[in-house]
Amino acid sequence: MEKENSIGIVKTESVTFKDEFFLESGRILSPVTIAYETYGTLNDNKDNVILVCHALTGSAHAAGLSSANENSAGWWDAMIGAGKTIDTDKYFVICSNILGSCYGSTGPSSIDPYTGSRYALKFPVVTIRDMVKAQKKLLNYLNIEKLFCVIGGSMGGMQSLEWAITFPEMVENAVIISAAGRITPMAMAFNTVARYAITKDPNWNEGNYYGKTTPKDGLAIARMAGHITYLSDASFNAKFGRRLGYQDSIFDFSSSYEVENYLKYNGYKFTERFDANSYLYILKAMDIFDLSYGYGSYEDALKRLKANTLLIDFTTDFLFPAYQMDEMYDIMKKYDNKVERVTIDSDYGHDAFLLEFDDLSAVTFSFLEKARRKKYV
Amino acid sequence: MEKENSIGIVKTESVTFKDEFFLESGRILSPVTIAYETYGTLNDNKDNVILVCHALTGSAHAAGLSSANENSAGWWDAMIGAGKTIDTDKYFVICSNILGSCYGSTGPSSIDPYTGSRYALKFPVVTIRDMVKAQKKLLNYLNIEKLFCVIGGSMGGMQSLEWAITFPEMVENAVIISAAGRITPMAMAFNTVARYAITKDPNWNEGNYYGKTTPKDGLAIARMAGHITYLSDASFNAKFGRRLGYQDSIFDFSSSYEVENYLKYNGYKFTERFDANSYLYILKAMDIFDLSYGYGSYEDALKRLKANTLLIDFTTDFLFPAYQMDEMYDIMKKYDNKVERVTIDSDYGHDAFLLEFDDLSAVTFSFLEKARRKKYV
Repeated sequence: MEKENSIGIVKTESVTFKDEFFLESGRILSPVTIAYETYGTLNDNKDNVILVCHALTGSAHAAGLSSANENSAGWWDAMIGAGKTIDTDKYFVICSNILGSCYGSTGPSSIDPYTGSRYALKFPVVTIRDMVKAQKKLLNYLNIEKLFCVIGGSMGGMQSLEWAITFPEMVENAVIISAAGRITPMAMAFNTVARYAITKDPNWNEGNYYGKTTPKDGLAIARMAGHITYLSDASFNAKFGRRLGYQDSIFDFSSSYEVENYLKYNGYKFTERFDANSYLYILKAMDIFDLSYGYGSYEDALKRLKANTLLIDFTTDFLFPAYQMDEMYDIMKKYDNKVERVTIDSDYGHDAFLLEFDDLSAVTFSFLEKARRKKYV
Repeated sequence: MEKENSIGIVKTESVTFKDEFFLESGRILSPVTIAYETYGTLNDNKDNVILVCHALTGSAHAAGLSSANENSAGWWDAMIGAGKTIDTDKYFVICSNILGSCYGSTGPSSIDPYTGSRYALKFPVVTIRDMVKAQKKLLNYLNIEKLFCVIGGSMGGMQSLEWAITFPEMVENAVIISAAGRITPMAMAFNTVARYAITKDPNWNEGNYYGKTTPKDGLAIARMAGHITYLSDASFNAKFGRRLGYQDSIFDFSSSYEVENYLKYNGYKFTERFDANSYLYILKAMDIFDLSYGYGSYEDALKRLKANTLLIDFTTDFLFPAYQMDEMYDIMKKYDNKVERVTIDSDYGHDAFLLEFDDLSAVTFSFLEKARRKKYV
C-alpha cells in the first residue's frame, strides 16, 4: 500500500543522560531517557533546526511511517516532509517525547533505579519547563545550539512558548498554536474530572497497577472528559447530531447515541496506548504551567521573548479561548516583539490544529518562508 | 434565626395513583406516587395556578422552609412568596417532584410491587413527557383544569415547553428559561461521562447497591462533570482563577487548586442527597427528550403551542446555546405565537437561572403582570 508520505520509514531513537537532572521542584531525576525522531539533514551552519513539540498524549513520532508499525504515520505527517510546510529538504526537524510520558522518555512507568521497580507515584512532579530543559539536553547531545524555529500546538504550544521564554537567545522563531501561557480554571475543571476518574478506579491502586489489571475504566472516562474539550459545539453537531447508535430504541436503558459510542470507543482505545500514571503527571504539568512563575508576572515573563513569534488560534477552541491569545499578543506588541497573530476560522475546536491543515499550512509556511529569507537558511 | 422568607414552614405532600400509568415507551408503571408542595390559595375560578417545574436534581420544595429541615429554603425561594415575582398572594403555586427522581415521587429507588424490592434497573425509562403527564395526574387530583402559567429553568424549562406542546389548551402562559426542545450532542457528551462514571463504579453493581455501599465516587465524578456545564468560562475565572488550595505546593502530586476543591466538595456533597440510579434515569430522560417525537418535526411540534410564551436565556450558558432559543423563537414567530424573547447578560452560565434573580424577576414579573391584566386573575 502506497502512503502519501515523503519521509518513509523512521525509527524512534533514544538517548539516556546519567548525570543529575535538576527539576523545577528541586528534586533530582536520574537517569533521564529522551526518545526522539529526526527528519531531514542538519546543515553545516547548524542553523536549519525546527523543533516540533507534541501535545498531551503525543509521541516523538511526528512524521513518516513508524518502523515499529508501518501503517502508523506520524501525528503531524501532513505538516512535515519533503515539500511540505515543515520541509525536510530545507530543515532538520526534531521531535522528542516529553518527560513524564510513556513513549520512550522517562516517566512514571519507567524503572526507578533506587528500587528496581516502576516509579509509579514516586515519580517526581515534572513541569513544562522541565520538559523543555530535557529537550535542551537532547539538543546539546546533538550539538545543536540554535533553533531556527520551535513549533507546537496545545501542550506543544505551551512548550514552544516556554522555549522562547526560558532560552530567548536560542530561539529565532516560534509558532504557538492553540495554546497559552497558562490554562483556564475551566480547563483545570476538566482535568479534575479526569484525575478523579483515574484515581477512584480501584484498579489504579495508588498508582501501583503495573503487571496487574490497569485502571482502564478510569482512564477511558478521563479521556472521554478530555475529548469534550478537543471538539466544539459546532463539531459535535456536525459529527453526531442527535443520531442514535445502530438500531437502538430510545426507551432502552442501555441505548446510546452516536456521540456516546464515539466517546466510548475512543476512550477505551486510548487505554490500549497510554499509561494512566503518565496521564496524571502530564495533566498535572498542564495545570501547574504558568509562564509567570519565577518572573514575577505574566508580562515580565513574556517580555523576555526575543523570537519572531506567530500566534495561531482557531475560532471555536474553548479549551484555549481567544482572550488568552489576545492577552499574549497585547503584551508582546507592547514590548515590541516581532509578533503576528492569525485566527483561523474553524468549527473543529481545539482539535483544529490536527485537522485544519490547509489553513494551518498556508499560515505557517508563509511565516517560515519570511523568516528563512531573512536568514538565508 | 430570621429568614427572608414570606411563606414559612411548608410540608411536602404526596399522592399515590393506583391505576395504570402508561408511559411513552409503552410500559406501565403502577402505582405512581407524586410528591408536591403548594403555596398560596387556589381562587374560586381556579384560574390562578402557576406550575413551577424543577431542574435535574431539584425537588418539590421550591419555596418556604422545609418542615423536615427548618434551615432548608426552597430552591427558588427568591422567586416565590408573598410580594415576590411568583406572588403567593395572587397565585396558587404548585411544584411537584419529577417521575424518576428520589425526592418522594416514584423512581428507581422506589419499591417495585411485583418484587417487593427496589426497582433499580427494572424501573422503566421515563421521559419528560411522562413527567409532564404525571404532573397532569396531580392537577386532575387537585381539580385543576387550567394553568395560568407553567414556568421552569433547565430541565424545568423542558417540562414547561412539553406542557405547552402536549396540553396546548391547558396552558395560558409559559416561561421557558435556559432550555430547549432537545439538548445538544455536546450536552449529551457530558451526560455520557457522567453515565460511565456511575456505571463503572464497582459499587454501582448493575444498579443493585441499595442497602449496600453506594457508588459514591462514580456519582461524585458524574456531578463534577455536570458542574462544569452549570458554570461558564467567565464564572470559572471569577470564582476560582488559578488559586491553589490552602498551603498546597504546586510540586506535590496531590496538591490541588481551588477549582478542584470546589468540584470535589460539591461532587461528594451531592452523593449525600441523591440516588445514583435516579441520576442515570433523569440524564436519560434529558438525552432522549426531543420535542419533535410524535409530531414529525421540531416545527410541527412547536406550532402546536398556544400559550403566550416568554423565552429567557443567559449570555454565557453553553449547555443550552443561544442558537437553540433562536431556533424556537423563529419557529414560534413564524406561526404567530405570542412569543417574547429576552436574553439576560450574565457571566454565571447555565446556573444563572438560580442566581440572577434581579433580572430574572424583573423580566418574569413584567410578563406575568401583562398576562394577569389581560386575564384579571
